[in-house]
Amino acid sequence: MSSSIGENLRITVFGQSHSPAVGVVMEGLPAGAPVDVERLAAFLARRAPGRNDWSTPRKEADEPEFLSGVKDGVVCGGPVTAILRNTDVRSGDYAAYFHTPRPGHADYTAAVKYGPARDAAGGGHFSGRLTAPLCVAGGICLQLLEREGIAVRAHIASIAGIPDEGDILTGGVGEIFPTLSVEQGEKMRGAIAAARAEGDSVGGVVECAVLGVPAGLGDPLFGGMESRLAAVLLGIPAVKGVEFGAGFGAAALRGSENNDPFALEKGRVVTLTNHAGGILGGITTGMPVRFRVAFKPTPSIAKTQRTVDLVNMEETTIAVGGRHDPCIVPRAVPCVEAAAALAVYDAWLGRKKEL
Amino acid sequence: MSSSIGENLRITVFGQSHSPAVGVVMEGLPAGAPVDVERLAAFLARRAPGRNDWSTPRKEADEPEFLSGVKDGVVCGGPVTAILRNTDVRSGDYAAYFHTPRPGHADYTAAVKYGPARDAAGGGHFSGRLTAPLCVAGGICLQLLEREGIAVRAHIASIAGIPDEGDILTGGVGEIFPTLSVEQGEKMRGAIAAARAEGDSVGGVVECAVLGVPAGLGDPLFGGMESRLAAVLLGIPAVKGVEFGAGFGAAALRGSENNDPFALEKGRVVTLTNHAGGILGGITTGMPVRFRVAFKPTPSIAKTQRTVDLVNMEETTIAVGGRHDPCIVPRAVPCVEAAAALAVYDAWLGRKKEL
Amino acid sequence: MSSSIGENLRITVFGQSHSPAVGVVMEGLPAGAPVDVERLAAFLARRAPGRNDWSTPRKEADEPEFLSGVKDGVVCGGPVTAILRNTDVRSGDYAAYFHTPRPGHADYTAAVKYGPARDAAGGGHFSGRLTAPLCVAGGICLQLLEREGIAVRAHIASIAGIPDEGDILTGGVGEIFPTLSVEQGEKMRGAIAAARAEGDSVGGVVECAVLGVPAGLGDPLFGGMESRLAAVLLGIPAVKGVEFGAGFGAAALRGSENNDPFALEKGRVVTLTNHAGGILGGITTGMPVRFRVAFKPTPSIAKTQRTVDLVNMEETTIAVGGRHDPCIVPRAVPCVEAAAALAVYDAWLGRKKEL
Amino acid sequence: MSSSIGENLRITVFGQSHSPAVGVVMEGLPAGAPVDVERLAAFLARRAPGRNDWSTPRKEADEPEFLSGVKDGVVCGGPVTAILRNTDVRSGDYAAYFHTPRPGHADYTAAVKYGPARDAAGGGHFSGRLTAPLCVAGGICLQLLEREGIAVRAHIASIAGIPDEGDILTGGVGEIFPTLSVEQGEKMRGAIAAARAEGDSVGGVVECAVLGVPAGLGDPLFGGMESRLAAVLLGIPAVKGVEFGAGFGAAALRGSENNDPFALEKGRVVTLTNHAGGILGGITTGMPVRFRVAFKPTPSIAKTQRTVDLVNMEETTIAVGGRHDPCIVPRAVPCVEAAAALAVYDAWLGRKKEL
Repeated sequence: MSSSIGENLRITVFGQSHSPAVGVVMEGLPAGAPVDVERLAAFLARRAPGRNDWSTPRKEADEPEFLSGVKDGVVCGGPVTAILRNTDVRSGDYAAYFHTPRPGHADYTAAVKYGPARDAAGGGHFSGRLTAPLCVAGGICLQLLEREGIAVRAHIASIAGIPDEGDILTGGVGEIFPTLSVEQGEKMRGAIAAARAEGDSVGGVVECAVLGVPAGLGDPLFGGMESRLAAVLLGIPAVKGVEFGAGFGAAALRGSENNDPFALEKGRVVTLTNHAGGILGGITTGMPVRFRVAFKPTPSIAKTQRTVDLVNMEETTIAVGGRHDPCIVPRAVPCVEAAAALAVYDAWLGRKKEL
Repeated sequence: MSSSIGENLRITVFGQSHSPAVGVVMEGLPAGAPVDVERLAAFLARRAPGRNDWSTPRKEADEPEFLSGVKDGVVCGGPVTAILRNTDVRSGDYAAYFHTPRPGHADYTAAVKYGPARDAAGGGHFSGRLTAPLCVAGGICLQLLEREGIAVRAHIASIAGIPDEGDILTGGVGEIFPTLSVEQGEKMRGAIAAARAEGDSVGGVVECAVLGVPAGLGDPLFGGMESRLAAVLLGIPAVKGVEFGAGFGAAALRGSENNDPFALEKGRVVTLTNHAGGILGGITTGMPVRFRVAFKPTPSIAKTQRTVDLVNMEETTIAVGGRHDPCIVPRAVPCVEAAAALAVYDAWLGRKKEL
Repeated sequence: MSSSIGENLRITVFGQSHSPAVGVVMEGLPAGAPVDVERLAAFLARRAPGRNDWSTPRKEADEPEFLSGVKDGVVCGGPVTAILRNTDVRSGDYAAYFHTPRPGHADYTAAVKYGPARDAAGGGHFSGRLTAPLCVAGGICLQLLEREGIAVRAHIASIAGIPDEGDILTGGVGEIFPTLSVEQGEKMRGAIAAARAEGDSVGGVVECAVLGVPAGLGDPLFGGMESRLAAVLLGIPAVKGVEFGAGFGAAALRGSENNDPFALEKGRVVTLTNHAGGILGGITTGMPVRFRVAFKPTPSIAKTQRTVDLVNMEETTIAVGGRHDPCIVPRAVPCVEAAAALAVYDAWLGRKKEL
Repeated sequence: MSSSIGENLRITVFGQSHSPAVGVVMEGLPAGAPVDVERLAAFLARRAPGRNDWSTPRKEADEPEFLSGVKDGVVCGGPVTAILRNTDVRSGDYAAYFHTPRPGHADYTAAVKYGPARDAAGGGHFSGRLTAPLCVAGGICLQLLEREGIAVRAHIASIAGIPDEGDILTGGVGEIFPTLSVEQGEKMRGAIAAARAEGDSVGGVVECAVLGVPAGLGDPLFGGMESRLAAVLLGIPAVKGVEFGAGFGAAALRGSENNDPFALEKGRVVTLTNHAGGILGGITTGMPVRFRVAFKPTPSIAKTQRTVDLVNMEETTIAVGGRHDPCIVPRAVPCVEAAAALAVYDAWLGRKKEL
């Protein structure tokens, strides 16, 4: 089912941009696991819109209401369900796109898939709004992973071709604008502002590292950590590519360059480099799991674009009004962390069982 | 389960490099679907080893034996099972690696995951040998997709940084060495030969296009075609990255550049460009589905590398003997086609049902 | 995942008896499917408590709020989520049972499974309250099946050993007390009243028939209609047995008695008897699908019973107060219909696809 | 997928009665688990045909060949695949039934489901032959459960209405004819012989108990042990009913009779009776899991029966020749044990994880 994912921890994300609520059901969370609602709120705030000049002015409280599964701050055993009400909804903004699909959006494919019954308002079930419940689920997993000594960190690796500088394993990430280098972050913000001024948008890359992952998580073949992570990450709207470790760069290396030599460090097996991104044969090596995620530029732009009138079947043009981020990458950083946490915690729950 | 994948067509790949056989069970193939065994054999021959100087000299007949599900050349309704016997097996070659894991291989992670019971010979269940049953399943899907007017084409996009030239949508792909440009293919073969001579290996990128895909396949969120394709592709050993359409390149574009304008062509909705790789909101647009897959260089190299003796827990070195491809990319091309066919046919079986 | 079921239509039931809400997410409902909210409410009213003297006085409005997936009365394509708020909640009633499990209830097994974090109030996630969202999902399926000419009918086959009389295929079922025979119904109600007066409870059997099912639904082996139906039916609290067609009675027949001869009726293949309950080899024959479901007597009784104090680990006694049905069978009839509708509609969505 | 089942241990059963082989793939068996091939063979022998006068004279060696996943007698981590060659195949026997379906068989429903491509020989994928790989998988689980102190025992509870006498928890089960009472077994064998002499067949009931199951296995709702067991059991051809503990009998009891009082026994919580069949709220109580399974009489009988000619669409008659068991119940006993072992071991693998 397309709105569900996970093997040991199964989440189902539901809702449309303008339905009464969006939400998530989580099955498989262990009874007794604590959920710190305040820390979760702080995590969700990193994704929430309307807080600065590079995000949509749509405002949502984004305080999850737990309908089931959590009692007195701990998971009680049944499925955990949390919802976020959609309040700042202006569906009128979208009536025009119902029959004139916005380029780069799911408007057209939703029309083909679901026909006249589709909920096109705000992108419906395809909206970036669905990353809010994803972050609720992922935010809980981040807390549970932390208890196991596993931390997830991500930053903007580049926006509009402007790269960040520094190492995610050691550097500090900005709170307001999640780059390692304040200076490079300034340049990126300039690029976003420039695009916005021209009624345009920009894309970027998010890099993520998962630290403290024990060796042995994941499975061979389709259950490999790469498949697990990619399936969640590519479910985030606007993601068009994922690479692990040296990724596409590895394709240009020789084996002697790309192979990570094994060594001992304080009696523990490590690799001296980490081109594998912490994954060999789909299974974690104990080194940090590292990957990069490509986000396309926000498709909603004010510039006039060619499109098609699906009713009269004739070509026309469109200029997308409404409220949109000129760049979603800053808000996507916690989404990537959430996706990573979901995949890693799912694998962690399925870790090797003793005979 | 890690060795299974698919929603409407579910495949389970089994076997180890040196077990009596490798094979695949396919559930969900429609009764009455014809299976052309000769064409399947021709497809498998493209992946088979031992045929030229860039592949391992291990020879396998690779003629699938159908144990169930196919009768008189057609699918009869029950699960289809095909096996390939492992015949040219020299397990002795691998005894040394049981305790001294080869860098870049799954030897170490398998040891952590499965402990002393693991079948390390030839990489066990992690071996590239498992792509043979994957190609059996994918090869059958290719035949069934063809009946729907859907074709899958792939070529080597680059090896060792040397790019192919031409367009996969229009160009012809070499039979022996699957590039569009014979000249560039020669350069790549030179790079492979050079690496081999130095006891080294090279990686590369495979580009794939699926033509004739109707609009409307796939689902939102985790059921998107990107997630579906990536989960299978990243299950192929040595794959470390996947990008769709403009992929990582899209991250550096503006929305006005990356968005694909809609237009009409003979009364059909098309996009004037295809940076989306034929997928919007996870659902096919009707344009060719395009993606690129990064393969790391073969980890098995003759050069001496650092590793660890897991029994005595001390550092040591290793030089990998045995029979290995100095570059697996040429043989990986049909594997990518097979993986694509599996994901697309699975989505096709789940296409919109009339109410 | 234990709270989810279904292959083509996947439902996830969530909530506890005393959590803010219970609810259900439905994935796979076809876009454009109409949902008649008024008829759904009428169906839910048949299950709702507090309406007569054989059910618990707990009162719940049981008006589902649709949070997602339904727009303007039709399914829009994304997951359909409906919740029912828990309002008439008196958790204090249950504090005593946290450590002294009620015989016949899940109190003890929940304690073992989930430990101190469990939500024991009202039975938590094990409560019969969870059949409310099951009936929301099943009620929608009943409406969609009706559009295909498929009807689901059930009645009380027996209570406290008192059998109903008549044939569910032809007889009318009482609205308030769902028996075919008013007279037998009166006797059953007498038995319920008698048990209630003694602080006791009674069980019973529900018989269900699904009419208009085309031949060819279901699959061999574990995907057979029997397995599909049983897995949902046995998920209803208090169900301890399921039998199809002649069921346990068939075990005492000879083949020549039990086999249903094939014949033609208006050019259509029928069977002259229906000991198979409309299912052969797991696949529907086109005859009515028939089955019976055994419900144990409500475990909550006022009579004093032996139990164990789990804190002090000593034997003690308990008399269950609170609000309970002396017999859940009348309210279980729509639950059985809902479960049947879910399993049949799921199979219907997976019906034979043309090549 | 209909031929697969299981959550933590997933099995896929494949093959047709007359295909080259039948077999099973098992995913999720823990690496290092020993497989005793000789004991497995002894277990399979109990199901094998052709050994006595109440089973079909078809003879199959039924020695499983392990194609993958087992090395040096232990599970190595990848999927375990075992096949059984079909050797004593006489497909000619079945040509007649292709268009004149045998009453009580899946011939007709297979024709509707799969059309002309179906493999009707010997019942194809619907054949009782498929219980051989089920027993391979279940037989391995029986061995692994035994290591955890869990034993599965079953006996013929009745044949042709003749009941066994004794208690499966304490009594010894006959090796050749698995009853507790030799005398009652003699009567049953007499009934089988009588039916056989008249070209007829008889059905029966198998009772099973699982001893040593710890409290806490299984899950609420659809993941309950009843749902889990029933889904596998009803996948065995000819099973038409399942009941747990007091089952249908419980429906006639009062709560005060059916509830099992809790008590302490050597410091352990037990129930003084076991009408629940060791399952409350879907979760094991620690008492023996008990259930009964109804088998219909073998549908293949020599007596002339009415049927339909599907080609000419006219009524006709049929007398089933070929080789068939006049009663499958004796051979079904190990199949029930295998099914129980699969469901219980699957739940055992998913037992409570420590936080």
